[in-house]
Amino acid sequence: MTSIETLATVLDLGGTFVFAISGGLAAVNRRLDIFGILVLSFVAGNFGGITRDVLIGAVPPAALSSVNYLLVSVVAGLLTFFSYAGVGKLKTPVLYFDAIGLAFFAVVGAHKAITHGLNPIMAALLGMLTGIGGGMMRDILLTEIPQVLRSDLYALAALAGAATVVGGDVMGISYAISAAVGGILCFGLRFGAIRFGWHLPTARLSAHRRASGESD
Amino acid sequence: MTSIETLATVLDLGGTFVFAISGGLAAVNRRLDIFGILVLSFVAGNFGGITRDVLIGAVPPAALSSVNYLLVSVVAGLLTFFSYAGVGKLKTPVLYFDAIGLAFFAVVGAHKAITHGLNPIMAALLGMLTGIGGGMMRDILLTEIPQVLRSDLYALAALAGAATVVGGDVMGISYAISAAVGGILCFGLRFGAIRFGWHLPTARLSAHRRASGESD
Amino acid sequence: MTSIETLATVLDLGGTFVFAISGGLAAVNRRLDIFGILVLSFVAGNFGGITRDVLIGAVPPAALSSVNYLLVSVVAGLLTFFSYAGVGKLKTPVLYFDAIGLAFFAVVGAHKAITHGLNPIMAALLGMLTGIGGGMMRDILLTEIPQVLRSDLYALAALAGAATVVGGDVMGISYAISAAVGGILCFGLRFGAIRFGWHLPTARLSAHRRASGESD
Repeated sequence: MTSIETLATVLDLGGTFVFAISGGLAAVNRRLDIFGILVLSFVAGNFGGITRDVLIGAVPPAALSSVNYLLVSVVAGLLTFFSYAGVGKLKTPVLYFDAIGLAFFAVVGAHKAITHGLNPIMAALLGMLTGIGGGMMRDILLTEIPQVLRSDLYALAALAGAATVVGGDVMGISYAISAAVGGILCFGLRFGAIRFGWHLPTARLSAHRRASGESD
Repeated sequence: MTSIETLATVLDLGGTFVFAISGGLAAVNRRLDIFGILVLSFVAGNFGGITRDVLIGAVPPAALSSVNYLLVSVVAGLLTFFSYAGVGKLKTPVLYFDAIGLAFFAVVGAHKAITHGLNPIMAALLGMLTGIGGGMMRDILLTEIPQVLRSDLYALAALAGAATVVGGDVMGISYAISAAVGGILCFGLRFGAIRFGWHLPTARLSAHRRASGESD
Repeated sequence: MTSIETLATVLDLGGTFVFAISGGLAAVNRRLDIFGILVLSFVAGNFGGITRDVLIGAVPPAALSSVNYLLVSVVAGLLTFFSYAGVGKLKTPVLYFDAIGLAFFAVVGAHKAITHGLNPIMAALLGMLTGIGGGMMRDILLTEIPQVLRSDLYALAALAGAATVVGGDVMGISYAISAAVGGILCFGLRFGAIRFGWHLPTARLSAHRRASGESD
């Protein structure tokens, strides 16, 4: 039990760091000042988990009752600020890091929702929300339509990872195993989306545009 | 009592469905993929109620502790996805459906706030928030200024419906009656706004623009 | 104890009023109707405190369980609506009023977070959030990148004020004293930013743009 909690914390902080980098990069791109960069780092790294905790009644949220999440976010933000060129060059690596963060969060979020008594379907959705919430709020703060709403299996990957953990729980499989399988599944779907352009269909509205030669 | 709860649930799910359609349509218009459409459907259908429940301390929110709201939202989203043309042709009908949904939510939201001990004025406002919250979040996610902030008695209609329920409660009138009256009042105001262009004044800033011939 | 609570309430309502004016002005500028103006007034005046209360588990939030905050916000909104020209002429005065509101909120928010058992660092951050949250949500609703993310020591001033209160609490100094010192510090930083253009650095990305003559 304790080792599982340690695992969950490590995954959670790792995911926070990676997402905070994505928030910091977005903030630098929009020319926010150092404070704006730190806010975006914190928001991107923690908003998903904070929303989950508020919704399941676990207040104050973990990201506020422990200082660790703040520290990790600030380090990520400062790193982005002081070596934007260096971090920016890592654009593709960051995509993969982000996929790792997504896998971490989806798995941890689903587990936490289960332990707070939510039904399996909603626990899976909250796992997904934990994964995508930070990036959504990052985009909203920068007045952009959240990328997750239009791209590349992002949310679906999170949902798949979270659903695996929930399914494992229903079938009595140990969390360590279902978390590993779910995390790999989530990462794998994102990997395919980044590398091979896997994506979901849009509505028929777009059928003629595709036919007329738009990239598919 | 049980029959009133059943009534409240039916109204709530009906409102969720209608609002989810509006979210799905907005998502298709912005060319989101199927996942984005489902998210917008869920958000438009449930964000108002979720916010209300978080604010009154009823966590996890009803929309998360029962699967029904998710199911209704997903059905609405899929319907929009697979028959956008059909649903889109119903633009004016959808406006009226939306007015029905607004009436449902305002009435149900006010009632729930009362039962959680909020004072009458704030209960009425929470009823209004239940009605308008989903549409506001739908617009925010699509980076648009929420329509409700600039149009046609929308929020005022919700407030009137909610206030009727609250007033009825203060005067000891049965919920079934005050809900019916409040719902009809809310729908009626929206009907007038859609059909006859009823609207609220903007600030004096605009006085000369109107004088110079802008549509009124 | 009671006199401190009274002081906190007065500061809180004063801050609400000032921020509500800022929300109302922004709404008029975007040509929202009277309802939109009232909503923006309420949101700008109360969203920071509501978010703080939800995060620390103090639900229903103070802004909803008492009618005072609503009344103050509505008065501010109506004032803006009926005398926009008058209020608008006060652009610079409003900046200073806003600085006063920020100081109030940062100090009160930090104090409330402490009394709800948050650790000192997070209590300081929640004080800051109380100060900046309303303005952030005002800007999000109007689809603008929150000003606080790019300007003039705004958030840093709030953080300094909140941290002073928290530091005073840790050192056992009376709230009345730390609140006064923190409030003056916050206001002083904003005053310097408004009057003398104090600001934070942006990332190196912008180095060559500055060199090429951009205003600094």
